Amino acid sequence: MTVHSTHDTIAAIRLFADRFSLQLDEFATFDASMPATLAESIRYSLLGPGKRLRPFLVYECGRLCGAADEACFAPAAALEMIHAFSLIHDDLPAMDDDDLRRGRPTNHKQFGEAMAILAGDALVTLAFETLTTKTIDRNHTGPLVRELATASGGCGMIGGQVRDIEAQAASTGGSRPLPLNDIRAIHEGKTGALFSAACRMGGIVGDVDVDTLERLGAFGLNLGIAFQITDDLLDVTASAAQMGKQVGKDQEKGKQTYPQSVGIDRSRELGSEAARMAIESLAEIEGDTSTLRALAKFAHQRDR
Amino acid sequence: MTVHSTHDTIAAIRLFADRFSLQLDEFATFDASMPATLAESIRYSLLGPGKRLRPFLVYECGRLCGAADEACFAPAAALEMIHAFSLIHDDLPAMDDDDLRRGRPTNHKQFGEAMAILAGDALVTLAFETLTTKTIDRNHTGPLVRELATASGGCGMIGGQVRDIEAQAASTGGSRPLPLNDIRAIHEGKTGALFSAACRMGGIVGDVDVDTLERLGAFGLNLGIAFQITDDLLDVTASAAQMGKQVGKDQEKGKQTYPQSVGIDRSRELGSEAARMAIESLAEIEGDTSTLRALAKFAHQRDR
Repeated sequence: MTVHSTHDTIAAIRLFADRFSLQLDEFATFDASMPATLAESIRYSLLGPGKRLRPFLVYECGRLCGAADEACFAPAAALEMIHAFSLIHDDLPAMDDDDLRRGRPTNHKQFGEAMAILAGDALVTLAFETLTTKTIDRNHTGPLVRELATASGGCGMIGGQVRDIEAQAASTGGSRPLPLNDIRAIHEGKTGALFSAACRMGGIVGDVDVDTLERLGAFGLNLGIAFQITDDLLDVTASAAQMGKQVGKDQEKGKQTYPQSVGIDRSRELGSEAARMAIESLAEIEGDTSTLRALAKFAHQRDR
Repeated sequence: MTVHSTHDTIAAIRLFADRFSLQLDEFATFDASMPATLAESIRYSLLGPGKRLRPFLVYECGRLCGAADEACFAPAAALEMIHAFSLIHDDLPAMDDDDLRRGRPTNHKQFGEAMAILAGDALVTLAFETLTTKTIDRNHTGPLVRELATASGGCGMIGGQVRDIEAQAASTGGSRPLPLNDIRAIHEGKTGALFSAACRMGGIVGDVDVDTLERLGAFGLNLGIAFQITDDLLDVTASAAQMGKQVGKDQEKGKQTYPQSVGIDRSRELGSEAARMAIESLAEIEGDTSTLRALAKFAHQRDR
């Protein structure tokens, strides 16, 4: 489905999310060798409501690079597992201490803290197992595992969460808002790394050259930043019903955000700039990039 | 170093552990792209004192199967990272709530709960990244990742921890000691799965056939059970100074153990039986298995 407007983008993502969620549900079915409560806890978070943005990116970038849809399932599923793991652990009492996620109790509220930690852990190993069992061309397995491990690790997503936690702790001590560069480093890790990996993994299953991989990665990184700035803005400006989660919580938790660092207007400018840079990264890639360009606009302009 | 007695086995493991720890220390050096506190927390647990039993098994089984020592580093390091992760998360307040590990404060006592959770998480992704960056023959990467992911996941090690936590919760409610089969299922997951994977990963880098892999796996599984039964026994019979950690804690926490389930004498018999079964698994493997056989005896007979 080729889309050109923000309105079409929402429809395309929803259509994809419904189809992909069914596939993921079928795949994430566990037999008795996994304890039943663990399976339930994993499925609660993995298959709960979600935009499926990272899988959407894998499929869109994969198609752009000539990959078959079947080749996109393994990386898309693995990314969604890593994403689900990160949400479970970020919500824990020792981290952001959130009770509500996408309108439902967070995993530890539903299953207890021990099970939530272990369900998160099991989702990480399941992601890598999935890449070895479901990747169609075995030559892609190593590069996909490497991409996912690097992007989610201590120099990527987990590193971003560490910077976030440390910034919150410092802020509780009454220090000034974080400089823009530090906010950017947090979001490049927490959101940018997986968005970038999603696009690159689509490129990997499409067997593209290194230059194209770099461009896809730059697109994903800037797209992730645009999404995150908008998330920060919506936490200040939107209602809980609109978002399906508690709002105003960033400030309450002493969380360092773009609006806190540079104000609402400047944050909007930076979001717009990130969306523009994402679109520019696509300029030298051949093929129909209209959906990806529309997605970048959506990332910046959405209201939920 | 070929060893024949329990005394020689301890010396061989120590010699190996010293050499391997140096290599691991050099490898696990992180640049500024990883937050400094995270790197410190990872190194604290990964490079702290430890027997390095799983790496030892990779190298010994690798050698037995004709693999070069260099080919054993990646799987050995990855296994030790997964092992370190599991100890950090098992020690957390929401899990076993331990303050002391190998004579030092546990990771969350040293770095706080949030950092301990994230250091554990980062060790998992680092393990899989290591398999993609340090595996010498690229044909081994996929099988090694699959082996490690399966063994550590919800049907392996993490599944064992879930069963353990659930058994403890049930026991707090005043129910009877767990049947032997359930204890066995806990330990097959918590200890057996990684021991088995260590031996199989040595076989994978040695390019052995499926039958030999199965035998190596059966050796590792039974060896792990023998080690775990002895651990359970030592928690009842040894002193804290001897063990370098709190003892008697299993009972205090309502933890289900072999001695609680079947008594001390029967536990000793089961440990001996597991060691014997481990040794029998090696019977049809060609080559010098004397070190592995001595290790199985050591697992059962050690006093710390």
